[in-house]
Amino acid sequence: MSRVERWEHAVEWPLVVAAFAFLTAYAIPIVDPEVDPAVRDVCTTVLTVTWIAFALDYAVRLVLSDRRWAFVRSNVLDLAVIALPVLRPLRLLRLIALVAVLNRAGANSLRGRVVTYVIGATTLLVVCGALAVTEAERGHPGATIEDVGDGLWWAATTITTVGYGDRYPVTTTGRFVAAALMISGIALLGVVTATLASWLVERVTEAGEQERAATHAQVSALHDEVLLLRAELAALRTSGRTDDDPA
Amino acid sequence: MSRVERWEHAVEWPLVVAAFAFLTAYAIPIVDPEVDPAVRDVCTTVLTVTWIAFALDYAVRLVLSDRRWAFVRSNVLDLAVIALPVLRPLRLLRLIALVAVLNRAGANSLRGRVVTYVIGATTLLVVCGALAVTEAERGHPGATIEDVGDGLWWAATTITTVGYGDRYPVTTTGRFVAAALMISGIALLGVVTATLASWLVERVTEAGEQERAATHAQVSALHDEVLLLRAELAALRTSGRTDDDPA
Amino acid sequence: MSRVERWEHAVEWPLVVAAFAFLTAYAIPIVDPEVDPAVRDVCTTVLTVTWIAFALDYAVRLVLSDRRWAFVRSNVLDLAVIALPVLRPLRLLRLIALVAVLNRAGANSLRGRVVTYVIGATTLLVVCGALAVTEAERGHPGATIEDVGDGLWWAATTITTVGYGDRYPVTTTGRFVAAALMISGIALLGVVTATLASWLVERVTEAGEQERAATHAQVSALHDEVLLLRAELAALRTSGRTDDDPA
Amino acid sequence: MSRVERWEHAVEWPLVVAAFAFLTAYAIPIVDPEVDPAVRDVCTTVLTVTWIAFALDYAVRLVLSDRRWAFVRSNVLDLAVIALPVLRPLRLLRLIALVAVLNRAGANSLRGRVVTYVIGATTLLVVCGALAVTEAERGHPGATIEDVGDGLWWAATTITTVGYGDRYPVTTTGRFVAAALMISGIALLGVVTATLASWLVERVTEAGEQERAATHAQVSALHDEVLLLRAELAALRTSGRTDDDPA
Repeated sequence: MSRVERWEHAVEWPLVVAAFAFLTAYAIPIVDPEVDPAVRDVCTTVLTVTWIAFALDYAVRLVLSDRRWAFVRSNVLDLAVIALPVLRPLRLLRLIALVAVLNRAGANSLRGRVVTYVIGATTLLVVCGALAVTEAERGHPGATIEDVGDGLWWAATTITTVGYGDRYPVTTTGRFVAAALMISGIALLGVVTATLASWLVERVTEAGEQERAATHAQVSALHDEVLLLRAELAALRTSGRTDDDPA
Repeated sequence: MSRVERWEHAVEWPLVVAAFAFLTAYAIPIVDPEVDPAVRDVCTTVLTVTWIAFALDYAVRLVLSDRRWAFVRSNVLDLAVIALPVLRPLRLLRLIALVAVLNRAGANSLRGRVVTYVIGATTLLVVCGALAVTEAERGHPGATIEDVGDGLWWAATTITTVGYGDRYPVTTTGRFVAAALMISGIALLGVVTATLASWLVERVTEAGEQERAATHAQVSALHDEVLLLRAELAALRTSGRTDDDPA
Repeated sequence: MSRVERWEHAVEWPLVVAAFAFLTAYAIPIVDPEVDPAVRDVCTTVLTVTWIAFALDYAVRLVLSDRRWAFVRSNVLDLAVIALPVLRPLRLLRLIALVAVLNRAGANSLRGRVVTYVIGATTLLVVCGALAVTEAERGHPGATIEDVGDGLWWAATTITTVGYGDRYPVTTTGRFVAAALMISGIALLGVVTATLASWLVERVTEAGEQERAATHAQVSALHDEVLLLRAELAALRTSGRTDDDPA
Repeated sequence: MSRVERWEHAVEWPLVVAAFAFLTAYAIPIVDPEVDPAVRDVCTTVLTVTWIAFALDYAVRLVLSDRRWAFVRSNVLDLAVIALPVLRPLRLLRLIALVAVLNRAGANSLRGRVVTYVIGATTLLVVCGALAVTEAERGHPGATIEDVGDGLWWAATTITTVGYGDRYPVTTTGRFVAAALMISGIALLGVVTATLASWLVERVTEAGEQERAATHAQVSALHDEVLLLRAELAALRTSGRTDDDPA
């Protein structure tokens, strides 16, 4: 395990906790825009602290890595999320790590893990998308998404590609959030279908698998048979010589 | 067969009948909101009686089961459906058991059963979704779903993820019904695609299967051949000895 | 080939021609509602004649079939299409037989035929759906589909499950046409995906197929080898006896 | 490599550059309709020059090909794109060749190439669809797509089959662009799902593959064993004769 991996393992849980704190502090002023100013201040502080935590994590990983340029190039999204305030909601993606952590403790089969991941990631995407779009749209002239309830409803219609059009974003930020949800929706549909298809294919080819296993067993038996044959032949050769010798 | 399984087997048909009675009693006042008060009273009675039946079934299964906490945990949806009036329409899910029962008498292949299940479950979901959304929306200010015809049309556009947006729910209950239909739509699309894909994969790999079967047969033939070889060798050994003995 | 099959083979092309004539006669008054009354009369006559042709075909097949009740049960859609005027547009489904006929002359691979079928059937469905919905909607209060151009555009947004909602049916007939197109859209998506998936699965498992073929060839070679071995052993036995005899 | 193939290889990069120049010259007056007339003139010149380049390429390929009628028939889309001004945006399809060129230098696996192709082709389709629809719709009475921002947003909602309906084309050209994007959306969904499904199927059948490889190795070992057996038998036969000879 390299130094970077040891660091990542050590801060996995703290960062998930930070992401949860971030989610809460991010959500409160969006859910209730007339929240008490003191609460709003606490939220702002938590957002700043978690931002520092994510920035520190990035810096430590950069310092610890052997090939720094390769690290920067392959973690360009992490850097963008930290540096650009507009990508702030993406910090919640760290919570998907939580799904991965929970997953590790859970189901073992590939498909079991795919199912857990899909449910976890979809729920997170809908919640984060709803918060981000509500923050972007509320109060904008012509906006149809005015509170988190609207945002959640809109996020659900978007990720399932239903798209009634009773609510839709009108700001550029809101439209980027929408694009992310739409792409997730395509991926969601793909993952659900692919999981079902692979299960069906497996069930249907089970008979073939059994025959293959039978062939495998039979080839093994054949191998043993041939070894016995060779042993017998060797015995014959020796006995032939022994029989001949006294003659 | 455990005691719980025997109970479930025994009440399968009675509960399907109860679910049908529930569906009818639930549908009538929604389809015709100005139905005769006497009919409405009969419907209310039927709803109460079927509710008692479902509650009794849950209680008996709980009492009969060996590990009660495990039972409560793995049947939390059943409990919620009985205890929470808002989840009342979900009692109709019991009718999906009817699809399963009909299925058992029908097609044998995995895909045949998948197809029956998809058609049955989709029809039920559209009907129940239409009833539930009409009950939730009718009379609500700004509602666009005012009768069961609208509800059925809206349910069809939702489960196929078309979502014109000429009708859409505006109440929280209606939106939850919508979310259930959307998720069903994703699942429906996934199941249809996966069934087709597994059929095509099977057809395309049929040649490979035939070759595999041929390999299997040939290995069997080879095995017989080697056994014959060994028998012949044994004969040779004996004959060698017999031939030598008199010498 | 049974008598029914011989009949079906003989009338295949005539019925496709009848379906084309039906399509033309059905389309003209819908495309141009202010068509010359003489043309409209010709169209009405063609519709009647093709209706008689389809009814005759059904009657002949019923008379020729050995088990008439089984025939009626398994061709209930054909009967409904002939008997119910509201299902008239479904007579165009006969044109899908044309796709099948063209197909037979074309590509041989399973996937090639699936692709031809999907393109042919989708085009037909969009055209027929557009005609049927325009006939049902035009002139209806609140209708948004007023001519065949609108109908085609609406059919395309529906079968691809996009559903903008700028045009949507408001009549019951129109909504049934929409439901048929939506279901076709789900099937279309499923078939496209499944065809691609089976192609990818085949390409990915090609290496395995080659190995399987190699195994098959090697088992064949092994079989030959063992046969040679047995021949040699037989030769040894004979030669052993021959060698011993003079001794 | 035939003469046509050598030509195509030689002009691959120049044509991609021409397509990029075309894209820029096509986009500028659409993005900024009040652009300086001098810039507009440059754009018009670039469009003419690139049109000549594409027409020349088609002519040279036609002249170089051995069977000219076959060439015309199998390149009918190329001819239409050059000859019909309305299909002008399709010249950008040449940029998909760029994706293919980039791809060749990149990932080797089939799925890696599919993923690159999907991302590249989808981005190009959204950009070109947005430009084409904006050009067609802007200024049209009742149009909802008035600038490139609206066009991009509409293209994203269309290709993902979400279709809110807040923006939709009202011109015939715009509706054809929409149909192309919808079909691409179906294909996109299909490709994403199929790629995931083939990956899952491969992972799930990996165990079977390993067993197959084991069977293959075992058959090889068996073959060696039988060859040894035959050698030993040959030795026995010789030794038998040698042993007998002195007797």
